[in-house]
Amino acid sequence: MSTQVIVLNGGSSSGKSGISRCLQAILPQPWINLGVDDLVQRLPPALLSSDTGLTLGSRGQVAPGPDFQRLEAAWTAGIAAMARAGARVVIDDVFLEGTVSQERLRARLGDLDVLWVGVRCAPETAAARELARGDRTPGMAASQAESVHRGVAYDVEVDTTRAESLDCARAIASRVR
Amino acid sequence: MSTQVIVLNGGSSSGKSGISRCLQAILPQPWINLGVDDLVQRLPPALLSSDTGLTLGSRGQVAPGPDFQRLEAAWTAGIAAMARAGARVVIDDVFLEGTVSQERLRARLGDLDVLWVGVRCAPETAAARELARGDRTPGMAASQAESVHRGVAYDVEVDTTRAESLDCARAIASRVR
Amino acid sequence: MSTQVIVLNGGSSSGKSGISRCLQAILPQPWINLGVDDLVQRLPPALLSSDTGLTLGSRGQVAPGPDFQRLEAAWTAGIAAMARAGARVVIDDVFLEGTVSQERLRARLGDLDVLWVGVRCAPETAAARELARGDRTPGMAASQAESVHRGVAYDVEVDTTRAESLDCARAIASRVR
Amino acid sequence: MSTQVIVLNGGSSSGKSGISRCLQAILPQPWINLGVDDLVQRLPPALLSSDTGLTLGSRGQVAPGPDFQRLEAAWTAGIAAMARAGARVVIDDVFLEGTVSQERLRARLGDLDVLWVGVRCAPETAAARELARGDRTPGMAASQAESVHRGVAYDVEVDTTRAESLDCARAIASRVR
Repeated sequence: MSTQVIVLNGGSSSGKSGISRCLQAILPQPWINLGVDDLVQRLPPALLSSDTGLTLGSRGQVAPGPDFQRLEAAWTAGIAAMARAGARVVIDDVFLEGTVSQERLRARLGDLDVLWVGVRCAPETAAARELARGDRTPGMAASQAESVHRGVAYDVEVDTTRAESLDCARAIASRVR
Repeated sequence: MSTQVIVLNGGSSSGKSGISRCLQAILPQPWINLGVDDLVQRLPPALLSSDTGLTLGSRGQVAPGPDFQRLEAAWTAGIAAMARAGARVVIDDVFLEGTVSQERLRARLGDLDVLWVGVRCAPETAAARELARGDRTPGMAASQAESVHRGVAYDVEVDTTRAESLDCARAIASRVR
Repeated sequence: MSTQVIVLNGGSSSGKSGISRCLQAILPQPWINLGVDDLVQRLPPALLSSDTGLTLGSRGQVAPGPDFQRLEAAWTAGIAAMARAGARVVIDDVFLEGTVSQERLRARLGDLDVLWVGVRCAPETAAARELARGDRTPGMAASQAESVHRGVAYDVEVDTTRAESLDCARAIASRVR
Repeated sequence: MSTQVIVLNGGSSSGKSGISRCLQAILPQPWINLGVDDLVQRLPPALLSSDTGLTLGSRGQVAPGPDFQRLEAAWTAGIAAMARAGARVVIDDVFLEGTVSQERLRARLGDLDVLWVGVRCAPETAAARELARGDRTPGMAASQAESVHRGVAYDVEVDTTRAESLDCARAIASRVR
């Protein structure tokens, strides 16, 4: 068996995108990188200011409504089908409900060979990087930094507080079969 | 039965993205918009300068290699699975091989209820818009404007040479069930 | 004397950027393209949600406060100095106060040789293109389409309602000395 | 006297943009952030593939030609005029010729009150971050990391190898008058 999906779970501004790009650069096979941010960008803008879609609170709290949840379920079913059809996929995700989110994703990925990766970053460091990026709602980083890991089980954990994306990617790549 | 997938086929700079955004705005249900450009952006950059991946000639010719073709097949299988799982999807596509591309996509979409849309634009107009966008390889628009429609069968055809995206979207929306 | 500055005045989504890119492509000398949007993007984000900075109403009304006005005055003085130092500059602008904005800009550009260009677009067409772009606050296009031209005097006027950016650029370029 | 211009000099991917955004967030007055990258983006695309403009070698070497140098001189004269007109400006720069670049910039900024800041980053770290960003020509970071500081005199130096952008910004802000 070989790894079919790599799931990177971490809060906003924890460094998932940088790690994904490094993984794409160092892994010998081509991997597609997809994340919940890609889904959000491809939705009707009106859904992002509707209670039934996805709303952002003034302190960065994310509130997914029923329409968003239905679309996200279908989106994930699609990514699982891509992987079954032979595409290797790195999924960037944010487990807003911790272990509940993981179990839901695990069920959707079914029989696929998944490497579960925790991407940690100290809350104050993630908040500082959120400010330096300048394109995210302030508060998301701090509010998600620890809560997304609650009760989640990983094959590998990396911490970007002191390690570069490339070093984290190398640690992850060594576990890819 | 209701429409599950809208396929917009047209050359580069023919106006597919603008039509998709208008469709998302005017259709009563939420539609996800995905296209081959999204796949390209999520691939390892190295694949975009490799003969086995996807290369761009100096006059805008697109040459898909075997690795790209395998990933695109899996990508399309994934989009079909999203639609089967209940997400309505607008697919922006470029049928580089005309009717051959359509038959391949038709097979991959299988039993889904698909609305096939041709997005035409006069070659010289598409080339002028390519220049005005400033972010595409010059030549793609002109080289694809007519060839992508060769032998392709449509449910609706729109022409952005003289019509705005919103008017084209309205003509398409009137055919969505 | 030769033209040192081209000022394109038009409402949001009237097509100024596309015309600017075409001008850069067809004019024999290199021209720098700068606009009020560039200034907005380089300001502290906090200024864009402050009454003293620049605020956007829910229907697309733009309200410049005193801090923004001071910075814009300095920004324009800087662009004038670039042109005096030998850079040819295409300025994309939105004369929120019509002729008052023009006279203010005229005073700041002083002795420079300026070509004044009006970029018109029918309000309903600009609004449709705003929807198709998907990245602007709805309402800006319609509210600015006519008001920005009130009392303004031009050397050339173009209308993107029916003409492509490239054709408009050609009409403008024929007036550049 | 109070600080009118902050010059951040550092190689590609050394972290200048992140520091600039943090400076904008923590400094009490509004600062405009402009850099050589902004100029490059506003030039005619054709100039970026011309020997007289700005070319990038396959290993990230940057070669400015005579047209680019003339435009950059005018651009800098314009930024100096903005600052003289009362706008506070953070300039992101890359001193390709080390001390020669600094003396040229010092002459152009003339009598302005400038805070000179060196933004250092270990070459291998900058190269790793360049890979993680995924949007820069590989090699620029490593080739510029040390050479841009040769012979340059600073008021403050920061090192992003181990410090976050926000901490670097705080060290710089403490020197702003």
